[in-house]
Amino acid sequence: MAEPATATQAAAPVVALLKDELDIVIPTIRNLDFLEMWRPFFQPYHLIIVQDGDPSKTIKVPEGFDYELYNRNDINRILGPKASCISFKDSACRCFGYMVSKKKYIFTIDDDCFVAKDPSGKAINALEQHIKNLLSPSTPFFFNTLYDPFREGANFVRGYPFSLREGVPTAASHGLWLNIPDYDAPTQLVKPLERNTRYVDVVLTIPKGTLFPMCGMNLAFNRELIGPAMYFGLMGDGQPIGRYDDMWAGWCTKVICDHLGLGVKTGLPYIFHSKASNPFVNLRKEYKGIYWQEEIIPFFQQAVLPKDCTTVQKCYIELAKQVKEKLSKVDPYFDNQADAMVTWIEAWDELNPTGPVPNGKAA
Amino acid sequence: MAEPATATQAAAPVVALLKDELDIVIPTIRNLDFLEMWRPFFQPYHLIIVQDGDPSKTIKVPEGFDYELYNRNDINRILGPKASCISFKDSACRCFGYMVSKKKYIFTIDDDCFVAKDPSGKAINALEQHIKNLLSPSTPFFFNTLYDPFREGANFVRGYPFSLREGVPTAASHGLWLNIPDYDAPTQLVKPLERNTRYVDVVLTIPKGTLFPMCGMNLAFNRELIGPAMYFGLMGDGQPIGRYDDMWAGWCTKVICDHLGLGVKTGLPYIFHSKASNPFVNLRKEYKGIYWQEEIIPFFQQAVLPKDCTTVQKCYIELAKQVKEKLSKVDPYFDNQADAMVTWIEAWDELNPTGPVPNGKAA
Repeated sequence: MAEPATATQAAAPVVALLKDELDIVIPTIRNLDFLEMWRPFFQPYHLIIVQDGDPSKTIKVPEGFDYELYNRNDINRILGPKASCISFKDSACRCFGYMVSKKKYIFTIDDDCFVAKDPSGKAINALEQHIKNLLSPSTPFFFNTLYDPFREGANFVRGYPFSLREGVPTAASHGLWLNIPDYDAPTQLVKPLERNTRYVDVVLTIPKGTLFPMCGMNLAFNRELIGPAMYFGLMGDGQPIGRYDDMWAGWCTKVICDHLGLGVKTGLPYIFHSKASNPFVNLRKEYKGIYWQEEIIPFFQQAVLPKDCTTVQKCYIELAKQVKEKLSKVDPYFDNQADAMVTWIEAWDELNPTGPVPNGKAA
Repeated sequence: MAEPATATQAAAPVVALLKDELDIVIPTIRNLDFLEMWRPFFQPYHLIIVQDGDPSKTIKVPEGFDYELYNRNDINRILGPKASCISFKDSACRCFGYMVSKKKYIFTIDDDCFVAKDPSGKAINALEQHIKNLLSPSTPFFFNTLYDPFREGANFVRGYPFSLREGVPTAASHGLWLNIPDYDAPTQLVKPLERNTRYVDVVLTIPKGTLFPMCGMNLAFNRELIGPAMYFGLMGDGQPIGRYDDMWAGWCTKVICDHLGLGVKTGLPYIFHSKASNPFVNLRKEYKGIYWQEEIIPFFQQAVLPKDCTTVQKCYIELAKQVKEKLSKVDPYFDNQADAMVTWIEAWDELNPTGPVPNGKAA
């Protein structure tokens, strides 16, 4: 597990599940050579590439991939003044891809993530595992000690209420990372050589009422069920904070999933994360988040959404209101963040005019 | 993983952690030949054997083990009228062993559980893993996506609040089972050949507010922190229900741990569970529990303990009161169960006269 799989190992025949129902969203500032390794798994799918940074730069995409690419000029042209809600010079820009997609499912991955190997040495088709996670129900109301009861060879154990065994629809699947773990800057600085070598063969539902640190590096979700909550916030250029984009989306998503009775899974699949980002740069981006989160997380833990919030959009607008009311005193930044959350929903609805999605079912 | 380890495989040199601070409690109706296989791991420890069924029968214990054995006559003699709270002809009787122990930690195991092997073929010292789980903190307030951050090679991930990284004391460690999984009778009947062969290399804290089905087959706990909540209830002989002893203890324990700020871990270690019990017999014992749990579990999910419940005993007496108030309408059985819960605490305090344990610290 200390090395990624080779392209040959990854070249097993692949059944492209949900081929016409899933987009792969990749934020990047460089040529996408990393796709070579993913070719056998990703080539059947459509890619949405969100180019961050200098829009005059050309991003090279390996031949044979079906993709659309948006740079900052495209984002500004498509969203007009509402483009202000899409971050610049931060991977938060990826959420623009969620908005322009027309597919039911999204898989998003960072361009420094490679194919990992399972303990038998087999290349892991991360996308296939995410799809399995998303297509099987979640169990947020009671913990199953043998983990995801919908995996092959698993089941509900003695004492699991039969009325809860149908589960609920799964909105998001959060995958993990071998090699370089997703650490904050202080931990990177203190443990620069720590590598994640433990392959844990598990998928589990994060229980209702429990928040988690959602990482955007290797993440899939059902856009119809939860898409409008997957806003990665104001980060990077012109903002006092970075590297909290996925955390923000994770807190909002989990609160809304809990309210709407949707599930979030974490665990498999692993990707191989090749390169730790610079801890000094990260510290500068993160340090405000590190103390703000001490107040933000309790805020989200206590957030209650009223019963009439029956769509993701309504839930999200309500959360924006509560952010403005309760977090603006932490820093004026949250005032802007709350406004951007509203703009995001307006832009989402403009690009996705079929109307709001009541509790996961098309209106 | 399809076979238990052999005695030779288990015979690696063992460091007897907490040797003078831990008792192993075994409920049984037969000769304890299964101890031969556990000898290298268990022999340094003191055993408390709770003999169920006919007290005139002699239970043979392999030579070289240090043990005390209690049969029904002993229980009646020691507890007098309060012996009514200790079940007969059900493994619930094991909790008598928790009460007479004078040690800080308890490990309890069924006599059809053998030494399992990890994926490398190495015999698993289940007790050692339980001790590691109990001696390291739990993290019930926020989910860590790399699981127990206190395991070697693991850590808190980006976005985990620093104020929560100290964790809380761990009260219980719930281990799992390879081979025969812990299924209810209906699942046993429907899937008679299903075996658990998936070794999941994980320990995790069950989040605050989440209940789980606690199995008594392979369980360890800190008796000083949570002992009085580990009552296995009225089951078996003369009762309308069986096989819900550990479930009952698990619901009560988790509610009280959540209230007192203590942690419960599940996952490693595995034992090898050799033989499924008869599903027809199990169905007769369980069937009331299967529908009662549909009301019991919501009751425990909603149970709130007042702030002045600062000891396990106070919490438990309060829970008994709520059981009487709210579950007696489900069945008159719960009226008796509530009374037995009070008797249990009275008997506990009689045998453990050092006084109640305020939030885990000796008074």
